[in-house]
Amino acid sequence: MGVKIEVPVGSPFTIHNIPFGVISTQGNPKPRCATAIGDYAIDLAIYAQHGFLSDSVGSSAVELLSQPSLNAFSAFDYSVRKAVRDGLITNITNGSIPEDSLIKLDEVTMHLPFQIGGFSDFYCSLEHVQNCTPLSKEPSIPTNWYYAPSAYNGRISSIVPSPQPIRRPRGVSFGPNGKPIYGPSLGLDYELEMGFFVSKPVKHGTELDINEADQHIFGFVLLNDWSSRDLQLFEMRPLGPFNGKSFGTSISPWVVTMDALRPYRCAPNTKQDPPPFDHLKWPTEEDATFDIKLEIELIRDGKTHSLATSNLRYLYWTPFQQIAHQASAMSGLNIGDLLGTGTISGSGVDSDGKKAELGCLLEANQAGTKDLELVDGTRMQWLNDGDEVVLKAWCGDKKGEGAWFGFGECRGKILPAPQ
Amino acid sequence: MGVKIEVPVGSPFTIHNIPFGVISTQGNPKPRCATAIGDYAIDLAIYAQHGFLSDSVGSSAVELLSQPSLNAFSAFDYSVRKAVRDGLITNITNGSIPEDSLIKLDEVTMHLPFQIGGFSDFYCSLEHVQNCTPLSKEPSIPTNWYYAPSAYNGRISSIVPSPQPIRRPRGVSFGPNGKPIYGPSLGLDYELEMGFFVSKPVKHGTELDINEADQHIFGFVLLNDWSSRDLQLFEMRPLGPFNGKSFGTSISPWVVTMDALRPYRCAPNTKQDPPPFDHLKWPTEEDATFDIKLEIELIRDGKTHSLATSNLRYLYWTPFQQIAHQASAMSGLNIGDLLGTGTISGSGVDSDGKKAELGCLLEANQAGTKDLELVDGTRMQWLNDGDEVVLKAWCGDKKGEGAWFGFGECRGKILPAPQ
Repeated sequence: MGVKIEVPVGSPFTIHNIPFGVISTQGNPKPRCATAIGDYAIDLAIYAQHGFLSDSVGSSAVELLSQPSLNAFSAFDYSVRKAVRDGLITNITNGSIPEDSLIKLDEVTMHLPFQIGGFSDFYCSLEHVQNCTPLSKEPSIPTNWYYAPSAYNGRISSIVPSPQPIRRPRGVSFGPNGKPIYGPSLGLDYELEMGFFVSKPVKHGTELDINEADQHIFGFVLLNDWSSRDLQLFEMRPLGPFNGKSFGTSISPWVVTMDALRPYRCAPNTKQDPPPFDHLKWPTEEDATFDIKLEIELIRDGKTHSLATSNLRYLYWTPFQQIAHQASAMSGLNIGDLLGTGTISGSGVDSDGKKAELGCLLEANQAGTKDLELVDGTRMQWLNDGDEVVLKAWCGDKKGEGAWFGFGECRGKILPAPQ
Repeated sequence: MGVKIEVPVGSPFTIHNIPFGVISTQGNPKPRCATAIGDYAIDLAIYAQHGFLSDSVGSSAVELLSQPSLNAFSAFDYSVRKAVRDGLITNITNGSIPEDSLIKLDEVTMHLPFQIGGFSDFYCSLEHVQNCTPLSKEPSIPTNWYYAPSAYNGRISSIVPSPQPIRRPRGVSFGPNGKPIYGPSLGLDYELEMGFFVSKPVKHGTELDINEADQHIFGFVLLNDWSSRDLQLFEMRPLGPFNGKSFGTSISPWVVTMDALRPYRCAPNTKQDPPPFDHLKWPTEEDATFDIKLEIELIRDGKTHSLATSNLRYLYWTPFQQIAHQASAMSGLNIGDLLGTGTISGSGVDSDGKKAELGCLLEANQAGTKDLELVDGTRMQWLNDGDEVVLKAWCGDKKGEGAWFGFGECRGKILPAPQ
């Protein structure tokens, strides 16, 4: 009764991935936990019904994996979660995944993988901050940026799984003559980020040792921190972004585990100067961050344009430093908390010497003062209604070869503002 | 079997209040819903077992009020919640509250009243912003402040019910010579605020009409937005407060309903100039905000000092404008979301002409450059370990007379930083 599953070339869900997510189907609209392999989701509640998880998870496996989020599963010790993933890899390889647990991916609806109780978003790419600082009214990069990962808390209620569309917000901004006006945002932007979910809590009132930071992370997703630059510019002083970033945050729905990412741990691109304070010092440089390749595509009028590439390792402050900084004030971490890495830009240029690793339009259009020219000659500044942004991420040297795997897409389309 | 309950003079929980909260006891450690009258909590799950709520809430009343938060109760239509509160008032007045539902307040442990999925905190007192602007590096009050309520998203995991203590955080700040240092915060402050909970959701991607804003609010609590001024000053640029405000937020645990507050709806103290945009315009001035009296007490070395008084009506931007602004970007509102009004300062002076309505120490000590003199001659600047801050609020002309009621305390003591 087991099935041998072929993984088509180019599928992000290779045997090296085995991510976790939450699915529903028309036939069973109740969201429940799943993994993905090739063109299929494996319904883990059904997989558990076959007894595959009784050794690792125990007798409550079916109930736990029937939950509408990964929170309960994540509460298990890392060793249990590892055993579940290892067992899946073995059973997929052996062709013993039960047929009734398989659902074609194009028949599933993806949900948020976790019930999210906290969402913070960082500002940790040196290239991004170097590009953005002259565009804002800051005279130089603030001192604090070099001494601790800069961040703000975001809005949780508007985090959505790809490919849910995003509606253009209305709000207050500076009008053409500098006078404040209210109306639909005219400066819609994406931000290429990754997000990571907390697997293991830290109690409010206690600190987190950075040496243990990686044990508190379940895994990574792509994250698009949609931004309205005109609303944001208006509201930033002095409390930072609010409505300019609250109208929507998209994530890729399959969480790629820390185990899958282990072979891609690497040193960051940039040496930190000044050296970080002890509480932000990761012990070994060579596994301090992740080599995750990133790409932004825009679909406009039916044509797909590659806008930029990047890599998570470009981040000046690593994810481990981000979570350690956030936890350092003892505010606590809960299972399912989401941390966004912030826009990931790089210093790379294309064959014409043009910057090719810009994580948002603000950097590329110089805060709306320059047009971008797309490959087909189309000119653009900000996102139009109907535009679709697709973020992609993968690990490995070449798509579809070797130990390659992908994250799946983080896709979202801009709907017009309400009438 | 009903009991006549006497309300002692000075009790905040008069018949005009009937707030909602979540309690547990040593005998029954499971948190469940309750109200308070005089010196007693009424366990609403037991009250429901007597059949009192079957007309209003229906057959699931016991189950709903046995929940560890008010979220499920709040999901009921306003008319149902009103019927429950009206019924309690009638039964308390008639002496027909069942004895087994009564628990002495000093025997209950209070919990967070709602499961909180979103927390935003505003900056909406003109006097507070006038006092704080010269103390920060802002040359003047930013334009945006006058055109929309300024706000940031806060950390949810560290919101605690009074009287839970708060631990002094460690973090990065500017040292004496301007060089960044890491260590225990040396500028701990309170902020006198109120908070209000969302009772009725607004779907992500849709707008909220300000004319309906009050229908989305369950009720009000006191809120202390504990702040570390040295950490905050260091990290503010450009994303606003993060760790400087994430280590703890205290609220009073009994939620005072919109019905209790109805007789105290009033016009704001300040006329808005420029007039607000239409989407922030409340239709009738005379019920645009609330006349809620506020007081801050400090307990140091066993002595209680009154530090300041204030009033919610002093706020330039009202709670209805705050929730309308937040919802205007269509980020959605969920049941149990908490909005903080921001520090509420006023322009009032004491008999010596000294400002007497300052909602935080930052304003009173001029960002740590001046000592405050307490009534007994003690001098202070920031909060010491062991200091206890008590926020109080009440409605009515004089404590304990007429239709007076209080909110109960929002109390918290400073614990030392970890060693």
